[in-house]
Amino acid sequence: MANVHFQLVDVDQQVFDSETIITPASLGLQSNPQSDWSIRMNRLHGGLSEGVDVISLHSGGLQLEVLPTRGMGIWKGSANGVPLGWNSPVQRPVHPNWVDQMRRGGIGWLDGFNELICRCGLGWHGAPGNDVICDSDGKILSEQFLPLHGRIANLPAHKVSVSASDDGPGRIDITGEIDEASMFGGHLRLRSTLSVVPGACEFRITDVVTNMGSNPAEVEMLYHCNIGEPFLGEGSEYHGAATEVAPRDPRAADGINMWNIFQGPTPGYSEQVYFTKPVADADGFGMAVLTNAEATAAFCVRFDTSTLPWFVLWKNTQPTADGYVTGLEPGSSFPNLRSVERKNGRVIRLESQEEVGFDLKFQIATNRQQARKLLDEVTSLQVASPRTIHSKPLPGWSS
Amino acid sequence: MANVHFQLVDVDQQVFDSETIITPASLGLQSNPQSDWSIRMNRLHGGLSEGVDVISLHSGGLQLEVLPTRGMGIWKGSANGVPLGWNSPVQRPVHPNWVDQMRRGGIGWLDGFNELICRCGLGWHGAPGNDVICDSDGKILSEQFLPLHGRIANLPAHKVSVSASDDGPGRIDITGEIDEASMFGGHLRLRSTLSVVPGACEFRITDVVTNMGSNPAEVEMLYHCNIGEPFLGEGSEYHGAATEVAPRDPRAADGINMWNIFQGPTPGYSEQVYFTKPVADADGFGMAVLTNAEATAAFCVRFDTSTLPWFVLWKNTQPTADGYVTGLEPGSSFPNLRSVERKNGRVIRLESQEEVGFDLKFQIATNRQQARKLLDEVTSLQVASPRTIHSKPLPGWSS
Amino acid sequence: MANVHFQLVDVDQQVFDSETIITPASLGLQSNPQSDWSIRMNRLHGGLSEGVDVISLHSGGLQLEVLPTRGMGIWKGSANGVPLGWNSPVQRPVHPNWVDQMRRGGIGWLDGFNELICRCGLGWHGAPGNDVICDSDGKILSEQFLPLHGRIANLPAHKVSVSASDDGPGRIDITGEIDEASMFGGHLRLRSTLSVVPGACEFRITDVVTNMGSNPAEVEMLYHCNIGEPFLGEGSEYHGAATEVAPRDPRAADGINMWNIFQGPTPGYSEQVYFTKPVADADGFGMAVLTNAEATAAFCVRFDTSTLPWFVLWKNTQPTADGYVTGLEPGSSFPNLRSVERKNGRVIRLESQEEVGFDLKFQIATNRQQARKLLDEVTSLQVASPRTIHSKPLPGWSS
Repeated sequence: MANVHFQLVDVDQQVFDSETIITPASLGLQSNPQSDWSIRMNRLHGGLSEGVDVISLHSGGLQLEVLPTRGMGIWKGSANGVPLGWNSPVQRPVHPNWVDQMRRGGIGWLDGFNELICRCGLGWHGAPGNDVICDSDGKILSEQFLPLHGRIANLPAHKVSVSASDDGPGRIDITGEIDEASMFGGHLRLRSTLSVVPGACEFRITDVVTNMGSNPAEVEMLYHCNIGEPFLGEGSEYHGAATEVAPRDPRAADGINMWNIFQGPTPGYSEQVYFTKPVADADGFGMAVLTNAEATAAFCVRFDTSTLPWFVLWKNTQPTADGYVTGLEPGSSFPNLRSVERKNGRVIRLESQEEVGFDLKFQIATNRQQARKLLDEVTSLQVASPRTIHSKPLPGWSS
Repeated sequence: MANVHFQLVDVDQQVFDSETIITPASLGLQSNPQSDWSIRMNRLHGGLSEGVDVISLHSGGLQLEVLPTRGMGIWKGSANGVPLGWNSPVQRPVHPNWVDQMRRGGIGWLDGFNELICRCGLGWHGAPGNDVICDSDGKILSEQFLPLHGRIANLPAHKVSVSASDDGPGRIDITGEIDEASMFGGHLRLRSTLSVVPGACEFRITDVVTNMGSNPAEVEMLYHCNIGEPFLGEGSEYHGAATEVAPRDPRAADGINMWNIFQGPTPGYSEQVYFTKPVADADGFGMAVLTNAEATAAFCVRFDTSTLPWFVLWKNTQPTADGYVTGLEPGSSFPNLRSVERKNGRVIRLESQEEVGFDLKFQIATNRQQARKLLDEVTSLQVASPRTIHSKPLPGWSS
Repeated sequence: MANVHFQLVDVDQQVFDSETIITPASLGLQSNPQSDWSIRMNRLHGGLSEGVDVISLHSGGLQLEVLPTRGMGIWKGSANGVPLGWNSPVQRPVHPNWVDQMRRGGIGWLDGFNELICRCGLGWHGAPGNDVICDSDGKILSEQFLPLHGRIANLPAHKVSVSASDDGPGRIDITGEIDEASMFGGHLRLRSTLSVVPGACEFRITDVVTNMGSNPAEVEMLYHCNIGEPFLGEGSEYHGAATEVAPRDPRAADGINMWNIFQGPTPGYSEQVYFTKPVADADGFGMAVLTNAEATAAFCVRFDTSTLPWFVLWKNTQPTADGYVTGLEPGSSFPNLRSVERKNGRVIRLESQEEVGFDLKFQIATNRQQARKLLDEVTSLQVASPRTIHSKPLPGWSS
């Protein structure tokens, strides 16, 4: 029974290891054939992927590819052979140096967007635009253009380590540390941990964001969990217990009656986004589940609503070539311009040295029985709380 | 007799080979001493060139340096010992990560401009500015700032391969694949092939651009073929059969009487640009030839006018230190802002999965006899078609 | 007795050496134990530092880390064990490809700011803004947005070499060459040399900027020498002989009575900047000294006032977490927008092929006696020249 630590990256200590294949054996841990695992960091070469480091985790039926170069996002994976991810027109991991976030009026972030899970944050996320701060007399105190979805998905980790234990069922943690800092621009630090229990088709993300600066700082975080086929297809359904659901805009309002049902790839389709207030379970976790039409496969994310009190469903069932995908998006706020979120009291404010944690658990069902179990859980959560579905955008949510 | 394939780069397959020296022998092909050849990819280090890959092709008297990191452009070369290229104030290949296309009001592209041949495209090329699309009532449907000359010259190939054959005179193809894509921004793919017959001082470029997206897409392509000394010098001449020639602007109109004659490096000179409608030969190819004053050396480009119906002559005989150069530029359109080209019906529109090909043949004459042969060919093309030289910019061409 | 040369980087010759540990012995020079030295270039990996090359110089009690990737800036160092540098919220060297100078309204330069010594220039430095050039009738001839502090700190050297001699006390030169060039954008070249006499706690910077273009070019240079603890602390003092001192703005005017005395890290403090006209010694050098409160340690920079006639004191005693630092900044001009400097005749104009040199000598005192000697020197300089301290910003200096 041991608890061991392996450093993959540490700029300060000049550690950078893309050679070692980390296994229970290499770490001196016990393992058994059913739950054997391995981790290796590998650098991609060529095209827009040049210099992108990929940490490949294999653990029983679960396989995940983590991108320390891209904010510890999870590029893609598989569960019992079923692919996790989607097909973006941006076909390979993009090194952030190719991403000019100011491109196309501030939506350059989309030039690198193709992950299964990427973070939007830390200082802000959401639509691009001018974040204007006024005093009580309406006098402008500051004005800053904020490009789409913040910086964190395009910032690299300066420290990455693996911790593993063979205590009980065992545990593997991949932890990355990323600074979102600038002189005269604040300093937020993300310490992100991806945890896996060997052999299980589940993983957990535990993030901590700390305000390293001396002044109070604003934080917004949204987990953009993007799922395509085979979980997504014609007739797929979204299941999530919520007290309120509202369309983001008139386009989404048009589809409110079918808001949680998915079309197949649809030419001419443009995205529909629904904002929701999730119901939490006894542990304070909300729950979002996407099932295929036959309910034989499901992708589930649970999230601690104490810091992720909102959930956004991004429906984007456009043709496959353009990116057929849906986003399950727990957030500390909605993905509106930060000034909208601030006005509505949804922006986190951290004092100096204060931190905020975000906790998410992912579970993949690859058969009917597992999927059913998840849906039953959603149902029992929803039954206990009445749900209001608004047919029009809610003023306090969308503007 | 064989046809063999060698993969230099493939991000998806994690292939990246900067070790192998590819030769007929290494591939198991026959060769003879007169037409022996070799290809090797090499990575540059230091300065703005850090990380730029260079594919060096040596074949008989021809030598070419291809830049997969920079859109498969051709940095420079030589033919029978005569240098092909020019001296830009930007003195070495520039990794695109150093090129901020938005710099200097959208002309940041020039920070990396020093190749013999670079592509301008794929979605647009030409002067920077706002591309406004209106409906029939003049209502603005979309507005996008387009920086100078598009993205393709600053995008890297994610796949590069060499194909070679020893059938007949033999053939070498270097093929690169580049994606110009963004989520919600379309997906154009360039498949570019540089072909050489071992031993000949000629090369061919065969490009195919495919609309990988589900929506129709606009394509503009221009081949910026840039030649300096010794082909360019005082008294050098441009020879190209055309039915119409017009100055781009008043500055070019000032020099219309000498439009195809070159000055030496001239302090205070500012560029003069001429737009032309080329005459095609029986195979549909136009022809552009630059000769030195003595007509003992010539650089010739032929281009398939079915997709490259326009030809631009860029005269830039400024002092050597600033870049003494002329551009022979076959294009699918003129290098105006895309809205101008669209209005005048010169923008290619590709349906989903549709493709367009561009075909160019380059020939270098290094003695009087070879040069004379090229000039005779131009003359016989021109003789068959009357030519109009406009003294002022043509409304439909320049605005 | 010999004078030897070692090439570390040369893109054109494909030289890039991060293996060799350069020592007197490796170069065949004589050395003695007291003044032994070594130089090695090393590449950082991970985070924003990926690809940053660091040249580490160890010579007797002096240690310096030079960044060829960042304009030959000096990241940090130590003198007799006393650290030279400061703690920026940007905690590690940042590869310039991560620095988008246009970010945050043109202050993106601050995303990579953490060096002991970095250059601001070459074409301009100072506050971001539109540099408008008008003719005598006020008609706008050109307008260009200039982001904060110019390009040079974020441009890499394409040539780096070490020269060393064992003549007399010996000498080590590290020379880097950097081009700030663009097609149609001029071409300035910096040839920068850092010189050390083995065994001494001193170093010298000798820079030459050449206008490689054919047209006259403007040059502005400022040496941002940034010092934190232990030289900076509560009660630290700035000592510099000057004929005139003026606050940059009202905020600095507020503190004019204490302009050369430093506070400890102070919550809510915002920077105060003082512009000065230094007094030169018999050799034409000005002198700027920062001492700690006890005057037991001092950091001194001397600068040739023939090309660096101005000196700026940047007081930034904000809390440690945000960057507690002061800048000693000899400049060819003040760090105002270039149009302000041009109007006031402080911008250098170089004809084609003309060059301008900048010469700075750094000296670190690590005991009371050494510090006293420096202060006495400042005093004797000042005594010979009356000093005017302006209580308000000077029109010709600040606007």
